[in-house]
Amino acid sequence: MSDTTLGSCPIPFSRYGHITLGHGSGGELMADLISGLFVPAFANETLAALEDQASLAWNGSRLAFTTDSYVVRPLFFPGGDIGSLAVNGTINDLSVGGATPIALSAAFILEEGLEIALLERIVRSMARACSDAGVELVTGDTKVVERGKGDQVFINTSGIGRIAPGSVLSIASAQPGDRILVSGTLGDHGIAILSVREGLAFETTIKSDSAPLHTLTRAMLDTCPQIRCMRDLTRGGLSSALHELAAASDVGVRLFERDIPLKTEVRAASEMLGLDPVYIANEGKLMAIVPEAHSKRVIGVMRSHPLGADAADIGEIAKDQRRRVVMQSSVGGERVVTRISGEPLPRIC
Amino acid sequence: MSDTTLGSCPIPFSRYGHITLGHGSGGELMADLISGLFVPAFANETLAALEDQASLAWNGSRLAFTTDSYVVRPLFFPGGDIGSLAVNGTINDLSVGGATPIALSAAFILEEGLEIALLERIVRSMARACSDAGVELVTGDTKVVERGKGDQVFINTSGIGRIAPGSVLSIASAQPGDRILVSGTLGDHGIAILSVREGLAFETTIKSDSAPLHTLTRAMLDTCPQIRCMRDLTRGGLSSALHELAAASDVGVRLFERDIPLKTEVRAASEMLGLDPVYIANEGKLMAIVPEAHSKRVIGVMRSHPLGADAADIGEIAKDQRRRVVMQSSVGGERVVTRISGEPLPRIC
Repeated sequence: MSDTTLGSCPIPFSRYGHITLGHGSGGELMADLISGLFVPAFANETLAALEDQASLAWNGSRLAFTTDSYVVRPLFFPGGDIGSLAVNGTINDLSVGGATPIALSAAFILEEGLEIALLERIVRSMARACSDAGVELVTGDTKVVERGKGDQVFINTSGIGRIAPGSVLSIASAQPGDRILVSGTLGDHGIAILSVREGLAFETTIKSDSAPLHTLTRAMLDTCPQIRCMRDLTRGGLSSALHELAAASDVGVRLFERDIPLKTEVRAASEMLGLDPVYIANEGKLMAIVPEAHSKRVIGVMRSHPLGADAADIGEIAKDQRRRVVMQSSVGGERVVTRISGEPLPRIC
Repeated sequence: MSDTTLGSCPIPFSRYGHITLGHGSGGELMADLISGLFVPAFANETLAALEDQASLAWNGSRLAFTTDSYVVRPLFFPGGDIGSLAVNGTINDLSVGGATPIALSAAFILEEGLEIALLERIVRSMARACSDAGVELVTGDTKVVERGKGDQVFINTSGIGRIAPGSVLSIASAQPGDRILVSGTLGDHGIAILSVREGLAFETTIKSDSAPLHTLTRAMLDTCPQIRCMRDLTRGGLSSALHELAAASDVGVRLFERDIPLKTEVRAASEMLGLDPVYIANEGKLMAIVPEAHSKRVIGVMRSHPLGADAADIGEIAKDQRRRVVMQSSVGGERVVTRISGEPLPRIC
């Protein structure tokens, strides 16, 4: 594998001459690709902020703009499908930026030979998700590729939303002493997908948590404009979100294992598969970084919302752990939560 | 092939039980999919308007929002590559709606094993196209699929733009007597791509016309706010754009063959391949529907712009041809320009 350089600067992803599944993992390899290739190439502050959504000045207001492609397999899984996931996921990227979602686009890359009845099920599911969330899908595109050059259906949804005046969420704003809140149990989506993957199928009643979080985030921000930032916990799970936060805010993170909400079945399946739930993707959960003085009030608001019923305070921005994420175990010891590099769960979303 | 119904309404695409390459053609099959599935499922006026971009009210202004996925092969072709095409194409969808492009998103679906050096070339080309057009790429996404489940690189770009106050372009607004203008020679992009396709390679110096049209459209609209509508002439070429117009405006169209600008080599290659240039995709050409009283002025403005140097008046909205597109040949006879159904040129963009 030869070295790749961007301009005169050797870049971290030069360790690999080719794209691996790990480059789509939400972990270190993807971060290398973003910081080594995309950010320098497109060179602008909005992109370089590495938020889940771009925030743009617009006629005296602020607008959020985001994009995500969905390549999840299988297309249908317990608790959802690629269609509703594509709607909810993009709504969530807007929501955690403090934006009210206004409109979505949908672009389909279809593989020749796809059953139209199956496409229809997916489109109906997207339409239902839009209608449930009160968001309109206003523009679209369809491309078809030859058999064997795609995988049934890939969907891109992009979205725009309105950012409330005064909202200044930023992953660079965490302060020592802040509390780390999550909106509910971790790992449900990833375990639900794995339970129906070929070669892995195991019995569980776990469903994906795929859900639109915009009313939850709205309630949280209305109650507490002091929230520092929010992130939905998709690829790479809680761990990736915290590592991005730690780097952007130049802080450390301490988690308390006993406080992390987990469904019994997710705990059991994770142990069976040798996975740590902090790395597993969620599609209807967020973390919020909140000044300690406000954290109890925010938890209260979260718990009074159906999508935040299991919200919990799981840790703190630590004074003593520069840019590291550590986990205090239930019995008291402390271990470092490393950032995933490769890809434990390809095509989880 | 079984019938597919949407709700209680039998839909035209039920003729096919499976997706074919033709469903991505910009022709009749794609129109069936859009009008039979997407529009009824998502049921909103903005989508149903079938413009190249959605137009949304925003804080007292209007915003344009559009999306396109690019699956062109080969990735590099005379006059461009998938990266610059993805930037220019989305800029053009905004521009023909009368919008000034403000920001783009980019979402990559990469196939495992893709050379990173190749991705880097594509990304650099995108960055150059953005910089040339003065548009920022502000948010992105990367997914990786297993080897054999994609085809090197697919790129989605979505875009937002600002619509000038008072601008009310609509494909439903054409009136009998209006003139049909095109901004230059037709078919260059499609012929350039075909000239380097495996199994088809032939010698030509034709280059893709891939280019951003936003300064051309701005100049045209500044001169003539009375322009009824504009369309870029991508998949399905001039023919598809005119058929969409004819249906939306409930009018007929008469073209004059001798007035359609064609490069000699495109004419020769089209004859050799048995293709009619009116069906071939362009990536830097537009048509404009203009009231006759203003058409000479608009042509003048187009010709004084580098991307409109070969602009021409090629036909009229006809009183006598309800929803049909007819072509008057150089020797005087008239033939119907049918809408393409299947796919003469798969993966042209």
